[in-house]
Amino acid sequence: MSKYFSEARSARAVNARMGPSVNPRLREVMACLVEHLHAFAKEIHLTQQEWELAIDFLTRTGQICGDERQEFILLSDALGFSMLVDAINNRRPPGATESTVFGPFHVAEAPERAMGECIALDGKGESCLFHGQVFDLQGKPVERARIDVWSDNADGFYDVQQPAIQPKWNNRGIFTTGPDGRYSFVGIKPVSYPIPHDGPVGQLLQRLGRHPYRPAHMHFLVTAPGFEKLVTHTFVGDDPYLASDTVFGVKETLIAPFDRVDDGETIWRSAFDFLLTPTDAPR
Amino acid sequence: MSKYFSEARSARAVNARMGPSVNPRLREVMACLVEHLHAFAKEIHLTQQEWELAIDFLTRTGQICGDERQEFILLSDALGFSMLVDAINNRRPPGATESTVFGPFHVAEAPERAMGECIALDGKGESCLFHGQVFDLQGKPVERARIDVWSDNADGFYDVQQPAIQPKWNNRGIFTTGPDGRYSFVGIKPVSYPIPHDGPVGQLLQRLGRHPYRPAHMHFLVTAPGFEKLVTHTFVGDDPYLASDTVFGVKETLIAPFDRVDDGETIWRSAFDFLLTPTDAPR
Repeated sequence: MSKYFSEARSARAVNARMGPSVNPRLREVMACLVEHLHAFAKEIHLTQQEWELAIDFLTRTGQICGDERQEFILLSDALGFSMLVDAINNRRPPGATESTVFGPFHVAEAPERAMGECIALDGKGESCLFHGQVFDLQGKPVERARIDVWSDNADGFYDVQQPAIQPKWNNRGIFTTGPDGRYSFVGIKPVSYPIPHDGPVGQLLQRLGRHPYRPAHMHFLVTAPGFEKLVTHTFVGDDPYLASDTVFGVKETLIAPFDRVDDGETIWRSAFDFLLTPTDAPR
Repeated sequence: MSKYFSEARSARAVNARMGPSVNPRLREVMACLVEHLHAFAKEIHLTQQEWELAIDFLTRTGQICGDERQEFILLSDALGFSMLVDAINNRRPPGATESTVFGPFHVAEAPERAMGECIALDGKGESCLFHGQVFDLQGKPVERARIDVWSDNADGFYDVQQPAIQPKWNNRGIFTTGPDGRYSFVGIKPVSYPIPHDGPVGQLLQRLGRHPYRPAHMHFLVTAPGFEKLVTHTFVGDDPYLASDTVFGVKETLIAPFDRVDDGETIWRSAFDFLLTPTDAPR
């Protein structure tokens, strides 16, 4: 057999080139990637022109990235790849609250707030009381759970997307549970919004006949000593984009009730409990 | 079955999202790509941290691209993907000269030269007479074949990489055959050189325990009416990088003789015939 490259054994020829002292994990990841990339080109009989389009697409995707924009994450999101990586790395025991994508809009070190406080600082939107309890898998309340929450405002933008318009930390806050594991805060009923779609990923979505919208959701990052970090959202059940989230983030168990109460305090109420997975849970 | 995303049916969920009026070829290419990307992540159990490294790598690869540099083509080359696409799209009948990668250094509209003329304008390197004949698959000489040639100089750089140092059109030229199909020109015996390796692709090669060198080669682009375009190189057989071309461009049939002649005219002679494939050849 020739020692040179051939179509038939293309991936093997590339992978055989790796040196003897390559990090073993890097070796297996790259070998698997090369096998799948080559299998893709062979299966689809990729043309030279399609290859050129792909090179151009990837280049434009890289070049639009900057401090405020990560187009490769958008691409990963739009291809369901981010959700898949999340799923693979967050397999949880039955009953535990499921995870979903982190998204690009979290900001570390949001203000710590007292239970019941309001995080909607711009006065826009329909107020909503979010409340519930944090439990372990046996139903025991979790004390000192730290609940970091964030959402868009009524116009569909996160504060960091509109630093000149929205108050700093608008619709963000961190709440810490007491012995009863309970949490509550006032925000707004979130609204659906498009991911940034004026770049290469937006063009791709359009050519694929897909809209760029995410259904309305509230982000939660829940941590507690002895438990796995939980990155998730709750979704508004009547959202028109619920079955077509452009980043595939929706899971049935994450659809929360949003009940219209108009009780003089808030217009809506949304109850949702979090069931955390102990770090030593069997899988 | 849930209408939402799940790990088990992740690729199907993504591909089902494409609209009804998507271009059929785009639909099949994207579906195949998504299936392989997802299968890769599942097979290798890609971690969140590895995903972040990949996002960062792709971003840096895009950002280093510019007028003078195409790092995504380098990446495709280094993963054998360019050679594979070339192979898939240039399957030729037995006996026909094989193709190899085009490379990034071709320049259109090089000077037309008379047979036997010299293309090495900088006076560097060991002179070499390149000669041979262009045939069809029945061994009949091909008249009016246009042979566009280019190589690096003795320092391992193409003229376009050193516009301030090398004469314009150094080691480039176009020759057109007469009724006998013969060609000849004087260049230099080419030398091996590294692909640009001060960017993300160079870092990847280093981590994979691979060198960045290409074995010495002369580029040929041969076209003639009624025949398929042939993009190929001839390789110098004693090159130390022949079995480890960093872009996997070497094929056994493309290794040409380089005979030391020292005949007062040139130091080397390299004979190579091209057998062109008619555009209507059965595959």
